[in-house]
Amino acid sequence: MKHYREELWFNLPERVGFVNITDRVEDAVQKSGVAHGLCLVNAMHITASVYVNDAESGLLQDYREWLERLAPHGPISQYRHKRTGEDNGDAHLKRQIMGRDVTMAITDGRLDLGPWEQVYYGEVDGRRRKRVLIKIIGE
Amino acid sequence: MKHYREELWFNLPERVGFVNITDRVEDAVQKSGVAHGLCLVNAMHITASVYVNDAESGLLQDYREWLERLAPHGPISQYRHKRTGEDNGDAHLKRQIMGRDVTMAITDGRLDLGPWEQVYYGEVDGRRRKRVLIKIIGE
Amino acid sequence: MKHYREELWFNLPERVGFVNITDRVEDAVQKSGVAHGLCLVNAMHITASVYVNDAESGLLQDYREWLERLAPHGPISQYRHKRTGEDNGDAHLKRQIMGRDVTMAITDGRLDLGPWEQVYYGEVDGRRRKRVLIKIIGE
Repeated sequence: MKHYREELWFNLPERVGFVNITDRVEDAVQKSGVAHGLCLVNAMHITASVYVNDAESGLLQDYREWLERLAPHGPISQYRHKRTGEDNGDAHLKRQIMGRDVTMAITDGRLDLGPWEQVYYGEVDGRRRKRVLIKIIGE
Repeated sequence: MKHYREELWFNLPERVGFVNITDRVEDAVQKSGVAHGLCLVNAMHITASVYVNDAESGLLQDYREWLERLAPHGPISQYRHKRTGEDNGDAHLKRQIMGRDVTMAITDGRLDLGPWEQVYYGEVDGRRRKRVLIKIIGE
Repeated sequence: MKHYREELWFNLPERVGFVNITDRVEDAVQKSGVAHGLCLVNAMHITASVYVNDAESGLLQDYREWLERLAPHGPISQYRHKRTGEDNGDAHLKRQIMGRDVTMAITDGRLDLGPWEQVYYGEVDGRRRKRVLIKIIGE
């Protein structure tokens, strides 16, 4: 069994943002030398997300507004989490909607994705350095 | 390490619908010859879902109504995604709630599920052919 | 390839509750003898969740209130699922938000988690015995 590990780093300028990381995950699959296996990609932070969906700027704006409707940032006073001195209570909720991790198949040395599937880093409490973990196992 | 890959195809007659695929995933596990490992099942499309929950028709109707409340199909004009000519902005949101993929354990050559766990294909933008991927690794 | 399986049992006194199981999952990783691999942790019940987020009591209260807002327990009559004699229609919805399972990397014999990542059992229909499955594969 082969295994491979890589970290990706991000520092987004706004509170909420989205980065297409499909090519970087595909690179990791190449480097792993795995032909058949599984590729786990997860946010290592609890106010960020890794998910699979469309690379379309209108949709990213829709996600932004929809997440704000389901879990508004303010007023901060609505969240108990703020009592620790944090103002990111909403980010812990938004992340549950978008998900922590994605597991993808590797087949014949490539990510085995459908035609429109793109892997995204979804930031919901940005403006600081954060990491994503890629872990690959297989043969 | 053994590995196995299979695709399931769907073409649901309505926009939203649910199909119990537990037996088909169990069949794939049998065919894989894997006794202990992991079984990934994921939608290969970004407006569809694979999830685990109850095989109960009342619940499926509840999901339908609840998803419509959290991410209404119309008016289409509320979604930026429509500017690409699509009318399925809501489907990309609904899919985040229901999830893209499920990873299940394989133990002694069987899907290692709890008593009521059933694997479902959840369609949120139907009326065309779509695929689900099953990838199994183990020994 | 090594593989390891363990069940954790819970019986929470209230309908909704959260239990930090990070140490118990880490113990399972130790017992597995796996240095590099994947660790799947999933609820074996369809009205419970396994997720990764913050170990902070204010946030747990925020989750409780937020889930109740997105999928209220009552009135029971709003759910078709009740026709089977159940009063837990809301729990099947809440579980979709919180998620069924988490897959984590194992690196150098440890759970490969970010600094604040904690693994939680999320109960949304408690007051009876329920199980979580840990399945580990790797080498």
